Amino acid sequence: MKFNISTKGFTDIIDITSMVEKEVEKSKVKDGICLVFVAHSTCAITTIEYEGGAIKDLKRALEIIAPMNEDYEHCKKWGDCNGYAHIRAALMKPCLAIPIEDGKLALGTWQQLVLVDFDNRPREREIIIKVVGK
Amino acid sequence: MKFNISTKGFTDIIDITSMVEKEVEKSKVKDGICLVFVAHSTCAITTIEYEGGAIKDLKRALEIIAPMNEDYEHCKKWGDCNGYAHIRAALMKPCLAIPIEDGKLALGTWQQLVLVDFDNRPREREIIIKVVGK
Amino acid sequence: MKFNISTKGFTDIIDITSMVEKEVEKSKVKDGICLVFVAHSTCAITTIEYEGGAIKDLKRALEIIAPMNEDYEHCKKWGDCNGYAHIRAALMKPCLAIPIEDGKLALGTWQQLVLVDFDNRPREREIIIKVVGK
Repeated sequence: MKFNISTKGFTDIIDITSMVEKEVEKSKVKDGICLVFVAHSTCAITTIEYEGGAIKDLKRALEIIAPMNEDYEHCKKWGDCNGYAHIRAALMKPCLAIPIEDGKLALGTWQQLVLVDFDNRPREREIIIKVVGK
Repeated sequence: MKFNISTKGFTDIIDITSMVEKEVEKSKVKDGICLVFVAHSTCAITTIEYEGGAIKDLKRALEIIAPMNEDYEHCKKWGDCNGYAHIRAALMKPCLAIPIEDGKLALGTWQQLVLVDFDNRPREREIIIKVVGK
Repeated sequence: MKFNISTKGFTDIIDITSMVEKEVEKSKVKDGICLVFVAHSTCAITTIEYEGGAIKDLKRALEIIAPMNEDYEHCKKWGDCNGYAHIRAALMKPCLAIPIEDGKLALGTWQQLVLVDFDNRPREREIIIKVVGK
């Protein structure tokens, strides 16, 4: 199961909860594990309370951990100036697993599933959903 | 499968290994995957050598990555001054998956499973365990 | 399923994609989840574009997050001066899950699976692969 998302890049943080929920429903699995995965080296999947303040705070924290405008070796070598994006993605990782209970994602009320696209341009991204269980 | 944990908040790091092991035993699964998940937006699950020194070191590192007393947008907007907690949780994530071999968690000797509660007050937290396999 | 890797330690980052792919092939699972796990408290598993520039950049970022030569409590207490390694491992975690589609890992072209060994000496490490699905 898959779906596509258009992103603006530059650490664009997009709520994908309802899209993942739809795929879980289609799978008919009532009890199991849902894996959310993005097959790109400049993206990550995580959870956050999806409100403007926390989103801004996460972007600022990532700017301290791996600043956009530092000199990256990846950039010097390939002219591909998204070095920060590769580092943020390697630290935050492209996968997240959520339990499925009674056919639904066992997420908290203030816990939304997000795709984070770090790349330095708008992109079209594919999200893979894999459900195992019964 | 679920159990509850009382935490002190403020990046309280609690060893939950034996509680998770008990749930895996109850599941009767001998070979598979155990997902540990916390359905709250200010908590994370990880592994660490559970000894006082490493625990203090982790708290100090998190204080550099997302300091408690910085000005967070989340706080300005909602008066909810746990902005640091949301950022730490989004970076460290609420899930961890461990292989099950011969009915046991395949953890290393110095590798304990921990709940980290970042929130700025004591909380009661629910840990969800989902086991798949045979 | 398991295999061993010799590492140089000191945040040695090793591409293990082809080794994991071989284990997935042996499992005969066509559709499911592959969990990659390292049962050591000073290692992590992640994905990165495996090229020299990005590898150097990741090492530099980790040196900011948890510097090698800081005073760690773990070191003061146990004389075991790999405190930085425990912190990096707790932040980056020992597991990564990838979807399996048509019997293959659903990784992107520039997305390699890596073992990161943070310890302060060469080590022999065991990687555990667990596949669930059909």
